[in-house]
Amino acid sequence: MIDSIDASFSIEWTHRLRFAQRAFDVGNEIDTLIEELQPVRILAVLDKGLADTNPEFIEVLDAWRGREERVCGDVLVLPGGEDSKNDLNAVNSVLESIDENGICRRSCILVIGGGAVLDAVGFSSSIGHRGIPLIRVPSTTLSQGDSGVGVKNGVNLFGKKNFIGVFDPPFAVVNDSTLLKSLPDEHWRAGLSEAVKVALIKDTALFEEIERNADALLQRDTAKMNSVLQKSATLHLHHITNGGDPFERLEARPLDFGHWAAHKLEQLADFQISHGDAVAIGLAVDIRCSVALGLLENEIAERIISLLQKLGFPTSHQELKNPILLDGIEEFRQHLGGTLTLLMLEGFEQPIDIHALDVNIVRQAIEKLM
Amino acid sequence: MIDSIDASFSIEWTHRLRFAQRAFDVGNEIDTLIEELQPVRILAVLDKGLADTNPEFIEVLDAWRGREERVCGDVLVLPGGEDSKNDLNAVNSVLESIDENGICRRSCILVIGGGAVLDAVGFSSSIGHRGIPLIRVPSTTLSQGDSGVGVKNGVNLFGKKNFIGVFDPPFAVVNDSTLLKSLPDEHWRAGLSEAVKVALIKDTALFEEIERNADALLQRDTAKMNSVLQKSATLHLHHITNGGDPFERLEARPLDFGHWAAHKLEQLADFQISHGDAVAIGLAVDIRCSVALGLLENEIAERIISLLQKLGFPTSHQELKNPILLDGIEEFRQHLGGTLTLLMLEGFEQPIDIHALDVNIVRQAIEKLM
Repeated sequence: MIDSIDASFSIEWTHRLRFAQRAFDVGNEIDTLIEELQPVRILAVLDKGLADTNPEFIEVLDAWRGREERVCGDVLVLPGGEDSKNDLNAVNSVLESIDENGICRRSCILVIGGGAVLDAVGFSSSIGHRGIPLIRVPSTTLSQGDSGVGVKNGVNLFGKKNFIGVFDPPFAVVNDSTLLKSLPDEHWRAGLSEAVKVALIKDTALFEEIERNADALLQRDTAKMNSVLQKSATLHLHHITNGGDPFERLEARPLDFGHWAAHKLEQLADFQISHGDAVAIGLAVDIRCSVALGLLENEIAERIISLLQKLGFPTSHQELKNPILLDGIEEFRQHLGGTLTLLMLEGFEQPIDIHALDVNIVRQAIEKLM
Repeated sequence: MIDSIDASFSIEWTHRLRFAQRAFDVGNEIDTLIEELQPVRILAVLDKGLADTNPEFIEVLDAWRGREERVCGDVLVLPGGEDSKNDLNAVNSVLESIDENGICRRSCILVIGGGAVLDAVGFSSSIGHRGIPLIRVPSTTLSQGDSGVGVKNGVNLFGKKNFIGVFDPPFAVVNDSTLLKSLPDEHWRAGLSEAVKVALIKDTALFEEIERNADALLQRDTAKMNSVLQKSATLHLHHITNGGDPFERLEARPLDFGHWAAHKLEQLADFQISHGDAVAIGLAVDIRCSVALGLLENEIAERIISLLQKLGFPTSHQELKNPILLDGIEEFRQHLGGTLTLLMLEGFEQPIDIHALDVNIVRQAIEKLM
């Protein structure tokens, strides 16, 4: 008799990303993707933030629902913002809607919203019936340039960011630039901090483009914002699909540059700071740490921090002085597990992994920012 | 500017199955697998049914814990049985233990128990930190021959079987034959109904082996049971790894033969019937349907049903007369979605998919069984 079997198999995914204008108009991206997927039913979920501020889009959405017979019942409207990920209300609402509307694995969930809503709805669609196809329509600069393009979802539990979630590629992501118009300034700029992050690691030309167009970006130049977001989204997507580690089984997570402090700061600030602002501050901390470690020239650090400030971001926060901030390093390690791996910068497109970060270096870095 | 990206990528898994005796002894399968995985911490979870009935194994487990320093805190003991999947208590307990013991993605969860406990713990390990490696040690004939070998997990919600769950291969599965000794008779025979199922579809020699050894199997001949379970487990595993559809993206699910009625019957009987017995009855229903549809010779049907009875299984139940049973067909379709696809039998190793099942055929089939 045999006593052991090792059988390998692989699963293939296609990650679809569409850059659109008025994606819900007749024959545009949403119609095309649904034609490709052929769902038997569609559950539509909408971020309350968008519902409240963008009546023009609601009209467009209603028109689409009017001609798409497979949409079930009412659009499910969920509150957004990181705070909405702190309980299971959103997840439970989606699961109940899946049940009540007979949404199955041959159906589809279409969600329009910011990163927090995309995360909670994505988690629900991944676990409902062991996986219902998802079409994500990110409605913020942050989700269009970064999180909405990813293959992760999750919600917070026990006060810990994304404590539960899964890796599960959506069927498609549609970045519709017309959705960005109604964003408040704080959310408008938010995607730029993640764009600066990915540009520093992977694309100096993008960094220079952001630098060159900083004023126009701050003054809400849509074409220039779209150019930056498309490049940021494409860099993030190719990191996933070509980077060799789409489900993050290895210890290094280069795209989490600046995120250990950002995540902890959000928690210490009781989520009264936007993710975009938190990431800008987190980047400033790790850039200052890179200098304190003797890795990065001070001149480059000043250039980056000055760009963040020019884009309207804070690069400091009173909670940086809170000693609990340092717990964020261990929590970051623990979420991924194993050896601590943080990314620091030696220069443009010159990331370097480190496996320990002395608290005195962090204190020194923060001192420079206060 | 580009307006569309379609990027494909694939993820590889290795499905490890070990057939063992005293797997927890020094240098045996558990030690070897942990040596391969190198987890930083281990959370051990145990089925209360096993804890209550197998003191010999508890001693073995304690000895292992005594020398394995990476095991955190106490063993988490969870109630088992299908009923335990009807709420989120087990899932919540595991998530709390993950949090309290600092279990991360470089740690591992080791679970010993029956199918329901494996399912609930597997779901928790799949969603905790977006995926913690899992070693499953199935402790029943049913889980050793079928469910414990699979790549699915889940718990029931809204009264619907496995309403939430994910596809996620465990790191390894260890079938330890010494765990089966303490099973009550009803659980001892349970794995044989799934073995008969897979034998009918894929392996006539296994069907004949079960037929030839029916008396010995009923009288708890461990060697003969192990032989059947190993073949059943191997057939199930190879169906997953070689069948071309490990995550069940297609509509056909051949290994769910007889399961639409089994699942609904469990619910109608308020889970007071074992899954093994329910599957035997479900098989009897679909075999009788195959005859009523003119697909299968009556003689073969009688031979199969008579074997199930000889093995100690019921092939009838008062709830088969409950008209709500027929809702099971639509619920089965809905769980997978799309077109109804049920497997019927034209003969040994001659399965055939059908896409509609007339209620009168089902009534006629059930009449024959009452």
